[in-house]
Amino acid sequence: MNLVLLFAKDFIDTRKVRLEGRRFRHILEVHRVLAGDEIRVGMAGGLIGTGRITSLRDSSLEMDISLAQEPPAALPVTLVLALPRPKVLRRVVLSAAAMGVKRLILLNSYRVEKSFWQSPVLQPDSIHKQVILGLEQACDTILPEISLKPFFKPFVEDELPLLIKDTIPLVAHPAAQEQCPRNVSLPVTLVIGPEGGFIPYEIEKLTLCGLKAVHIGSRILNVETAVPFILSRLF
Amino acid sequence: MNLVLLFAKDFIDTRKVRLEGRRFRHILEVHRVLAGDEIRVGMAGGLIGTGRITSLRDSSLEMDISLAQEPPAALPVTLVLALPRPKVLRRVVLSAAAMGVKRLILLNSYRVEKSFWQSPVLQPDSIHKQVILGLEQACDTILPEISLKPFFKPFVEDELPLLIKDTIPLVAHPAAQEQCPRNVSLPVTLVIGPEGGFIPYEIEKLTLCGLKAVHIGSRILNVETAVPFILSRLF
Repeated sequence: MNLVLLFAKDFIDTRKVRLEGRRFRHILEVHRVLAGDEIRVGMAGGLIGTGRITSLRDSSLEMDISLAQEPPAALPVTLVLALPRPKVLRRVVLSAAAMGVKRLILLNSYRVEKSFWQSPVLQPDSIHKQVILGLEQACDTILPEISLKPFFKPFVEDELPLLIKDTIPLVAHPAAQEQCPRNVSLPVTLVIGPEGGFIPYEIEKLTLCGLKAVHIGSRILNVETAVPFILSRLF
Repeated sequence: MNLVLLFAKDFIDTRKVRLEGRRFRHILEVHRVLAGDEIRVGMAGGLIGTGRITSLRDSSLEMDISLAQEPPAALPVTLVLALPRPKVLRRVVLSAAAMGVKRLILLNSYRVEKSFWQSPVLQPDSIHKQVILGLEQACDTILPEISLKPFFKPFVEDELPLLIKDTIPLVAHPAAQEQCPRNVSLPVTLVIGPEGGFIPYEIEKLTLCGLKAVHIGSRILNVETAVPFILSRLF
């Protein structure tokens, strides 16, 4: 937690917050603050600044908040991921939020196991928790928008054409001929397949829609590694 | 498993292997092979090729092996990581092996919890297992060399100066002034700190040794995300 993310409900006064639970314990046990210490905080959806600890109790603390700085720039990307297995999804959401992805779409695909869509990890609360952890890690305050698309074909036919407008539309595909571009200057729509990859029908639908299939070398990376690897190359 | 990694002990004849256990079950349950099918295999430390299933039994299978292709190029990097927490270590070893890191050094640092050094995940068998999973993921056959350096100062004073010779020596440090270089043409020695970062004394020792502190933007990434992010930027 390199920044403590604050929400409207934490405020007990215009410039004063009271924290309990996870954030309280983390500030106490990891940051090991004393009254008077300052820590980095950020208002969800807003500015970054400092919190000065004014009181420490058994199960809560209070801070005076002063906010001044803009959060870091977002990554100009829409990331479309074939829904990963729940354990992986948790980490990918955290990592994408930390890198500054602001639009994440979780898509069905032939090789996505049906049970993944029933996972409690997909519940809004659970996703929200990973997002918060990612933003706190990266000192960001802007929550990404995450949406679920459990039907591949209507998404690709009806929604993807609009999404890719004015972006570089890419699908990461180990068998592609072309290399993933580096250091681009336009926003990107990046689609990444499931373990085992998209099936030929899906690649065909995506390329028909206008996406260019690109590879990142002969090594096939798992989604947790591929996401930072490709985003770092692009921007 | 995009490639089945084979070891000398799997061979029952010059060109014939018998597999049981994890690899057998994976080939049967995930690849869903039938006798006569071909799958991608690689000889640990050697060439890549195909295995043609010649027999499938209840708990083992046999394949005729033919090897012809070189494994993918290694990443020209020595990766030095402050020892991550055990759960993270497992994933980082897998991911580093998949990306083609061939020399990984796990280093102590002030902010590494002492208990991490006692973790069963550091046992050679456990590390070996993650390496194999990483190579199988990325279709590589060359095992990385992984070494443990539980003493920061003697490593940095006595070993690091030799290691960084003829390389670009970098330490990833959020507070650095200079940006991490992109797309370099020399080998790199890359040092990445623990959660919470290196302490100032450690950064001073590393920079005195000749390492340049570099950042990857204002976002602080966790080690699992930072490793692919930085390696992708460098090469």
